[in-house]
Amino acid sequence: MSINFKDYIASVQDFPEPGIIFRDISPLMADGKAYAAATDAIADFARERKVDMIAGPEARGFIVGCPVAYKLGVGFAAARKKGKLPRATVSASYQLEYDTATLYLHKDAIQPGQRVLVCDDLLATGGTIAATIDLVERLGGIVVGTAFIVELTDLHGRDKIKNYDMLALTQYEGA
Amino acid sequence: MSINFKDYIASVQDFPEPGIIFRDISPLMADGKAYAAATDAIADFARERKVDMIAGPEARGFIVGCPVAYKLGVGFAAARKKGKLPRATVSASYQLEYDTATLYLHKDAIQPGQRVLVCDDLLATGGTIAATIDLVERLGGIVVGTAFIVELTDLHGRDKIKNYDMLALTQYEGA
Repeated sequence: MSINFKDYIASVQDFPEPGIIFRDISPLMADGKAYAAATDAIADFARERKVDMIAGPEARGFIVGCPVAYKLGVGFAAARKKGKLPRATVSASYQLEYDTATLYLHKDAIQPGQRVLVCDDLLATGGTIAATIDLVERLGGIVVGTAFIVELTDLHGRDKIKNYDMLALTQYEGA
Repeated sequence: MSINFKDYIASVQDFPEPGIIFRDISPLMADGKAYAAATDAIADFARERKVDMIAGPEARGFIVGCPVAYKLGVGFAAARKKGKLPRATVSASYQLEYDTATLYLHKDAIQPGQRVLVCDDLLATGGTIAATIDLVERLGGIVVGTAFIVELTDLHGRDKIKNYDMLALTQYEGA
């Protein structure tokens, strides 16, 4: 399908703070054809790598990853913030600009040896995705790739996950 | 497909606080066949009502609704918590046990006249889903039904949304 995904990404000046341009995938999600085309592109990338499971961080990672899981007939593992998962978890912390954040995954969310694609809407500095990869690997999962709707190339998140195959449907320079 | 969805829902005692049994859909999401069967059941319900759009509240509503949107080739509107949506929004507040919460929807997330199914993982007292319905309707959307993986029947959330067709894949008595 010849869709230009950038036509469906809103660039919002000064959000969440002055000087930042927020790349918003909401218009893509709102358009059935564009959302399906993005899902199909990621599912093709995943299928070539024979995935058993999709994983993604709260909350936009669910919007990207869950339809891919459905398309491939596999499960979805949700990496969540504190206090959301009721059973035994593993956790991984990562650096934010002035703070740290922690993500959690249920211990039974991934079975050892499962081949996992890790998805999110956007790759910035790569902290969130690296933490999600860490959680999957600590449970014995094999991360066979990462996929994003948007890559912010100036922030070099790609360097942080360079040991993994990566798909980005769009790329933007400049934060 | 003859799946008993309750086989894939974990009942966790005393979460998030003593005396509460948390119904956790994570095992269902983790199983590709069960997750697809739940998605297909909700998509059938939606298709009969000719939906143009799926909507759901952060964050488990995304896990339930996004694959349904993909299956039907329609878009998804994400009702989010404060500070997450970068463009102009409408908001709706609702009562929690000791507090109020607010959900937001981008003003362009729904076009007037669109037929919308509103999804979440679980129906408890119905506050979250009623707020999501309110947001959709204020944007001119026509809510043609609601769908849940789990209904907690003792909490009578169904009464709060009795003007809408409703699908619940499982029902539990007792909180």
